[in-house]
Amino acid sequence: MNDVKLDVYIEGNIIAAIGDVPKTADIVIDGRQKALIPGFVNAHTHAAMTLFRGFGDDMPLMPWLQKKIWPNEAKLTSEDVYWGTKLACLEMIKSGTTTFFDMYHKLGASARAVEEMGIRAVLAGACMDHFDPELREKSKKVVEQLYLETEKYGDRIRYAVGPHAIYTVSGELLQWMSWFTREYKVPMHMHLAETEEEVQNCVKRFGCTPVRYLRQLGVLSPRLIIAHGLYVDDEEIRMLAEFGVTVVHNPASNMKLASGMRFKFTEMREMGIRLSLGTDGCSSSNNLDMIEAMKLASLLGKAWRKNPVAVPADDIFQVATAAGAAAVGLKSGEILEGFLADLCIVDLNQPAFVPNHNFISNLVYAANGSCIDTVICDGKIIMQNRKVPGEEEILKKAGELAYKLVAES
Amino acid sequence: MNDVKLDVYIEGNIIAAIGDVPKTADIVIDGRQKALIPGFVNAHTHAAMTLFRGFGDDMPLMPWLQKKIWPNEAKLTSEDVYWGTKLACLEMIKSGTTTFFDMYHKLGASARAVEEMGIRAVLAGACMDHFDPELREKSKKVVEQLYLETEKYGDRIRYAVGPHAIYTVSGELLQWMSWFTREYKVPMHMHLAETEEEVQNCVKRFGCTPVRYLRQLGVLSPRLIIAHGLYVDDEEIRMLAEFGVTVVHNPASNMKLASGMRFKFTEMREMGIRLSLGTDGCSSSNNLDMIEAMKLASLLGKAWRKNPVAVPADDIFQVATAAGAAAVGLKSGEILEGFLADLCIVDLNQPAFVPNHNFISNLVYAANGSCIDTVICDGKIIMQNRKVPGEEEILKKAGELAYKLVAES
Repeated sequence: MNDVKLDVYIEGNIIAAIGDVPKTADIVIDGRQKALIPGFVNAHTHAAMTLFRGFGDDMPLMPWLQKKIWPNEAKLTSEDVYWGTKLACLEMIKSGTTTFFDMYHKLGASARAVEEMGIRAVLAGACMDHFDPELREKSKKVVEQLYLETEKYGDRIRYAVGPHAIYTVSGELLQWMSWFTREYKVPMHMHLAETEEEVQNCVKRFGCTPVRYLRQLGVLSPRLIIAHGLYVDDEEIRMLAEFGVTVVHNPASNMKLASGMRFKFTEMREMGIRLSLGTDGCSSSNNLDMIEAMKLASLLGKAWRKNPVAVPADDIFQVATAAGAAAVGLKSGEILEGFLADLCIVDLNQPAFVPNHNFISNLVYAANGSCIDTVICDGKIIMQNRKVPGEEEILKKAGELAYKLVAES
Repeated sequence: MNDVKLDVYIEGNIIAAIGDVPKTADIVIDGRQKALIPGFVNAHTHAAMTLFRGFGDDMPLMPWLQKKIWPNEAKLTSEDVYWGTKLACLEMIKSGTTTFFDMYHKLGASARAVEEMGIRAVLAGACMDHFDPELREKSKKVVEQLYLETEKYGDRIRYAVGPHAIYTVSGELLQWMSWFTREYKVPMHMHLAETEEEVQNCVKRFGCTPVRYLRQLGVLSPRLIIAHGLYVDDEEIRMLAEFGVTVVHNPASNMKLASGMRFKFTEMREMGIRLSLGTDGCSSSNNLDMIEAMKLASLLGKAWRKNPVAVPADDIFQVATAAGAAAVGLKSGEILEGFLADLCIVDLNQPAFVPNHNFISNLVYAANGSCIDTVICDGKIIMQNRKVPGEEEILKKAGELAYKLVAES
């Protein structure tokens, strides 16, 4: 309701000035009845799995993986991954995400899709040696190759080492990868402590729980980003905090796959752990909407604790933006001078934002991804008035490839 | 991907024919790249509380009610309720709801809003006697008056008796109301078994749990619709089934207020209880999006049971449409000849519906209310291409009144 003049001036890919900006820009966007927010950072997904959206829901976990997902995933071509990632980027842009952390196969195809869509991504090439020394050596070569390959792409694309999980990757390979991340200053992104079964098997196989196992291996570090972290005890929380590990909460996936719900948001934040938020892939959570993920994280956190004050809107918004960016050393996720111009414009002219007693509350609890009107990434407008260039072709092509893929199964 | 010709022909307010319809209609809507679904039935809300959206979130329950909600609710004028309900109707139409069950004060103002917006509603005038015999007699008069008053409105509006809860309404008044609903063939809509505290207090005060208490009073009947029903044991589930009571699940509200999460969806369905779905009011759940409510109900059901097969998409879709309609004897909620033309057209040309391996899965797990393109209620188009006549005025007016209301507090 106020008439404060507050302009944001972007120069190149940087927020150059905020306030009463004297300069005139080449492109001026009218912000009346709009709000400016940082772009969301989706800190864990498998982008190309959009192709499996709705393919085998409401099934028990193992039959679903064994009959539906794995056999079809094995058939994926580079073209499939390219169009699946394009569809994911389109969906993320449309719901306000400007950076995502991916873990998948055929990294080159994903990278091409990301480059074209104008979004920012940290691409982890998924690696598994299945405790086989031969595969281990192959995996090392792949990591080195992917690292070099990713260097060729622009600044919006970064490489991360992507060991799948402790039950698919040997301790030796994890240690080598950790050395690699230190040497080449890249992040390491992996699944950890996602299910009770994983923890039980870890104890059986390695004699301790997952975080303790990684600490013994010397793999815990500020470069490590773990997805899920649902099953960690107080001492493990202290370890994660001590080594500066980032933990990515994926509430939709955890609920839909029934992995668990007692994510220790409060304890981890209090310990100073950097928490981020993710949607996980579309085969487990079905969409890539970070606004929905914020609401789920907050509501689930309140529900299992029986505490309506837990996981408040302001905290989860920070986790979904600034914290994700900080996890990979990106100077973005906040609207500050000198920060990357990765920004979204929210359309306030809709029921979810009326009345506007509290904007962040409306954003987290009332809105969904469709409130995003315009997206700027790396200083460039990649969506305006909800239109993304080429979206019709992406929907058509990805839809066709997905049908073809599963029709053959 | 198929080219099946499947037309739906509406005559007056009724679906007159489905299939290869020979007649030509006055208005023809092109359904290509669209899907037709029944309109949703939001079976529990307090519509005018849109005015309190985001007003005091993330607070403990009692300070929130005592400092934020109750003092401001007491100040609500008929004009406030009218515009708050208009805003709610706008939001519901925009997310595909064609019928809602309301419980609030100043029923005439709500009724006017509903009439103008073209939606269908079962309006329960909220009643409390606070166990005071004088207020009890007054309440009876009010029920009789509201019943007669509601008769004046068109067929889209029905009256329901609305005792607030067992801790605000005496047993004597509940019994009289139950007699009234039998005599005048109207539904009775009340909160029941929402919190552990309510159950404990019920046992302390009346010597038994809430459903048993209502059975002793003789209040259980097929006309009774209870909101929440979170805390019911196996025997109470059998009682609810035996008497044909409808139970409305409100997952967003239950999670956000931390009332509880173990809603016994599976047990109740297996017992043959008619389950419906609601959003509750915007002060507790913040929006009125039934697609989001379906996803929350399904994900929460899977999470607390640790079973990814629980509360499947098809079931919750039936609960959110046909079951709600059946609860009040409306011949709607399904696309069948002879049924009311309360329908929504979904726009499939967006990421949530690509690929379309399974439409209902995409609708429940991937989409949100913004996928609704066109809404038909009682045979009339009330939204087309996401435009509702008069929406700008409603947003403006409701926003202004809400600010004014809380600015004085």
